[in-house]
Amino acid sequence: MRWLDYESDVCSIARALEVLGDRWTILILRELFNGVHRFDDLHEHLGVSRDVLTRRLSSLVAEGVVERRAYREPGRRERADYHLTGSGRELQPVLISLLTWGDQHRPAAGGPPVRLEHRDCGAEVGLTLTCAEGHQVRRHDVVTTPLPGARLRHAG
Amino acid sequence: MRWLDYESDVCSIARALEVLGDRWTILILRELFNGVHRFDDLHEHLGVSRDVLTRRLSSLVAEGVVERRAYREPGRRERADYHLTGSGRELQPVLISLLTWGDQHRPAAGGPPVRLEHRDCGAEVGLTLTCAEGHQVRRHDVVTTPLPGARLRHAG
Repeated sequence: MRWLDYESDVCSIARALEVLGDRWTILILRELFNGVHRFDDLHEHLGVSRDVLTRRLSSLVAEGVVERRAYREPGRRERADYHLTGSGRELQPVLISLLTWGDQHRPAAGGPPVRLEHRDCGAEVGLTLTCAEGHQVRRHDVVTTPLPGARLRHAG
Repeated sequence: MRWLDYESDVCSIARALEVLGDRWTILILRELFNGVHRFDDLHEHLGVSRDVLTRRLSSLVAEGVVERRAYREPGRRERADYHLTGSGRELQPVLISLLTWGDQHRPAAGGPPVRLEHRDCGAEVGLTLTCAEGHQVRRHDVVTTPLPGARLRHAG
């Protein structure tokens, strides 16, 4: 397909970025994936202002990617923590692909800080490109083809 | 590992986002992946201001993710177009993971606009989680373990 012939705003990447297109948003999701759920912990661990954190969390809740759960510890006032919803957990490949690229192309001075392991066997986990027929697919063997949902530009 | 015990800024996701943490940046990369290379085409197809486009492209060039190539058509002044470098092309999984999530959780009214196909067999291409032992890995079977590059907080 000639990409320029199509409208660029009918694109699932663009729509995903309406939810995610911000550095703090992705780092908040990383914290939730890593089991950090309380506002104060998020604030302190990320070093993000309370203001920005509040706005990003509200937006993630409004998008249905994060849910807010009220809880109350004995003798204390009610508080809330934050958890990924089903659609939030499905962002895992976005985070893993960023992690992999960062490990490789922006290595930390002391080497990669974490490794993703398969719980069952301990081997390193990563994303691979495969097709529905079960083939391993090389990067340049991915072809983008238009579906009926694509819109030609200057139509009519 | 207890994620809160570690410094959160020694993280490859955070370092990747220093390059990518912006909606326009990712959409520019999408255009380059889709074969759009000229400044004017990028400007028009994305609907991004020339100013923002110039800044984002310069930053991507400075990061070594995009390269600027001068060319001259007969009888015209020299111009430049923009191409992904090796490390830029390795961002493909980031874009595919965003595409997949967007298709699934932010579907367009007319259905997904594009499909990724395996050049050899035509079957749909996607990212799968696998481990180095060749197992398919389920989402919740990914365990994050610290490496020597991780930094404990409040050390000493």
